Amino acid sequence: MNMNFNFNNPTNILFGRGMLNELGRQPLPGKKACVLISSGKSTRANGYLDRTLEQLKIAGVDSVVFDKFTENPLKEHCEEGGRFARENGCDFIVALGGGAVLDSSKMVSSMAANEGDLWEYAKGKPFQNAGLPIVTIPTTSGTGSEANCSGVISNLKTQEKIGFGDTRNIPVLAIVDPDLMKTVPSKYTAYQGFDALFHNTEVMISTGLNLLSEAIALSAIENVAAYLPRAVRDGSDMEAREHIAYASTVAGITMNLTLTTAEHSMEHSMSAYHHNLPHGAGLIMISKEFYQFFVDKHVCDERFIKMAKAMGIKNADKPEDFITALVELQKACGVDNLKMSEYGFEKDEAMTLARGARSMQGLLYTSNPCEMTDEDVAGIFEKSYH
Amino acid sequence: MNMNFNFNNPTNILFGRGMLNELGRQPLPGKKACVLISSGKSTRANGYLDRTLEQLKIAGVDSVVFDKFTENPLKEHCEEGGRFARENGCDFIVALGGGAVLDSSKMVSSMAANEGDLWEYAKGKPFQNAGLPIVTIPTTSGTGSEANCSGVISNLKTQEKIGFGDTRNIPVLAIVDPDLMKTVPSKYTAYQGFDALFHNTEVMISTGLNLLSEAIALSAIENVAAYLPRAVRDGSDMEAREHIAYASTVAGITMNLTLTTAEHSMEHSMSAYHHNLPHGAGLIMISKEFYQFFVDKHVCDERFIKMAKAMGIKNADKPEDFITALVELQKACGVDNLKMSEYGFEKDEAMTLARGARSMQGLLYTSNPCEMTDEDVAGIFEKSYH
Repeated sequence: MNMNFNFNNPTNILFGRGMLNELGRQPLPGKKACVLISSGKSTRANGYLDRTLEQLKIAGVDSVVFDKFTENPLKEHCEEGGRFARENGCDFIVALGGGAVLDSSKMVSSMAANEGDLWEYAKGKPFQNAGLPIVTIPTTSGTGSEANCSGVISNLKTQEKIGFGDTRNIPVLAIVDPDLMKTVPSKYTAYQGFDALFHNTEVMISTGLNLLSEAIALSAIENVAAYLPRAVRDGSDMEAREHIAYASTVAGITMNLTLTTAEHSMEHSMSAYHHNLPHGAGLIMISKEFYQFFVDKHVCDERFIKMAKAMGIKNADKPEDFITALVELQKACGVDNLKMSEYGFEKDEAMTLARGARSMQGLLYTSNPCEMTDEDVAGIFEKSYH
Repeated sequence: MNMNFNFNNPTNILFGRGMLNELGRQPLPGKKACVLISSGKSTRANGYLDRTLEQLKIAGVDSVVFDKFTENPLKEHCEEGGRFARENGCDFIVALGGGAVLDSSKMVSSMAANEGDLWEYAKGKPFQNAGLPIVTIPTTSGTGSEANCSGVISNLKTQEKIGFGDTRNIPVLAIVDPDLMKTVPSKYTAYQGFDALFHNTEVMISTGLNLLSEAIALSAIENVAAYLPRAVRDGSDMEAREHIAYASTVAGITMNLTLTTAEHSMEHSMSAYHHNLPHGAGLIMISKEFYQFFVDKHVCDERFIKMAKAMGIKNADKPEDFITALVELQKACGVDNLKMSEYGFEKDEAMTLARGARSMQGLLYTSNPCEMTDEDVAGIFEKSYH
């Protein structure tokens, strides 16, 4: 266990049902908001956009809306959003949506204040100017992006999907209102809930784990295991929604404390090459074999046992118990049989995916509890293939 | 369990052994620091002051030193410190010391930017101007004050001890370096460690408990129970010091999430009337009877059982198990026999202390898990009297 840590979570998080109604009473970081939403219909149809604009009006803030973001959000839309914010004289960003919108908001913020091609920044060029301040309002439970400074963006031309960000872009305010998640369809509730789970399970096996990230991650894991099947079964079960929203949001804190692992690199490679694959679904497909790799190596047995206990196997005493709990949870959420082949994957892509994972997000490999070669990663993809 | 919460912890916390050496590399919030230390010899004698000034020099920051703070810090020294900072043209505060110095730093910060008598602010008048930014460097493990905006100040004339603060005064940076705690004498290590414990046990029984404060508080409680006896036995046991420092610092986060209870009001009354009483010692003296009151009422049985488990009674199944664990820990730390009479208390003061507790810090009573009258409080003081 790492005894040193840096706790740096300046986002003011207002968590709870009905909290969107508090937005208008909060001190906001500007006078004109660029409100970002997805290209889908739901944010408007469910009234979330109108309610947000109304709250901004109460706060005395003008706003314009930019609505182009898709699942696995694209570089071009981030650049366009940045120009849009600048041309409209916006002085802050409000991101209202799921992970795609929240992730994109960091890039829109930076591109509103910086020139150039976003992909140069994705490849390591620092943003010269600080971006616009960001307010996040998640409408799904998964990414934890409401309380961190980074985002994962796709480049269709280069077939890359890269997570990056400017530390100055950490949101100033996050309104996490589980009522906004009530309308998420069952399948996506499961995908996103597993994303929240894996943020925390990756933190748990990470070399960067510390006492504080462990305490929060275990609490999040316990809540996902206990409540995700209920939220998947009945989206209007608001008690379940609250607990999953909690697990997702606090993952933003654990990830600020402790870097996640190569499971995320691997999924980013998968959806970089198969852009129609939802992030959470990709993670679920490879999760059993990913964790089995470390279980077999016996490099963090005690941590797996702690997670298995948090997931309900009270007398867990071996690392394999975590795999048992994970598979049980997948079954309980109806996602134990997701197939890579249904998203166009071929079995012989395994090494391409493995190399892509390392080149797109090699940093996360440093958090793995032991070495994992490209051959190892390809093997995990192969075993996961159905 | 409260499902809503406000997570608002903007303090950047650098935690770990040797972290003081990182101070000079941090972006600091000004060009001239008013460095606050206690009136005792240890901060200078142990080299902590010189090392801090050297780090400030590396950061290109000038500094002046104000060294008047005593245990249970006084209103007058906070006012004087504020004038001192202003007259010396300081634009930020560095608080280097134990709870007395950290608590005072919030008041010095505000008084450097505001006129008038501090006690008017203690009684509820709002500070008109924002104070100077604060950097905290704790040299003890107890208060959690390094990461929150308030302080507890004594007024000898009115025999009051009041906790208050301006939310704008939350420290911008906290350097928590367990190496600085190595020199704390055994007795004070125990007093302070129990203060850290009770911050978290009070959060656990508070009406404001939520999923996140519970997760962090239980982790802190587990660490105090496991490591405080070692830190008390051997102050140079740095592994133990690290774990106690962790528990103390994260209490700052749990207390920002969830208000503590009347145990703290009661101790503030005790040391208001008996100014020589160390805060942690006062808490220890009343703790058994304070928690026994709620155990007997059966108002939060499950929470007591969770705490008892965290404290090492693995098969805990009744609230009384927490009392057993608490008393065992007091014995293991050599503080099970502290006597109010040795600090000049008389048994017939009980009702005076009870009324003082409510009048000085009545707000905390709202967090108690059930009603607690002045008669109840006086009864706890009487039963605690030796």
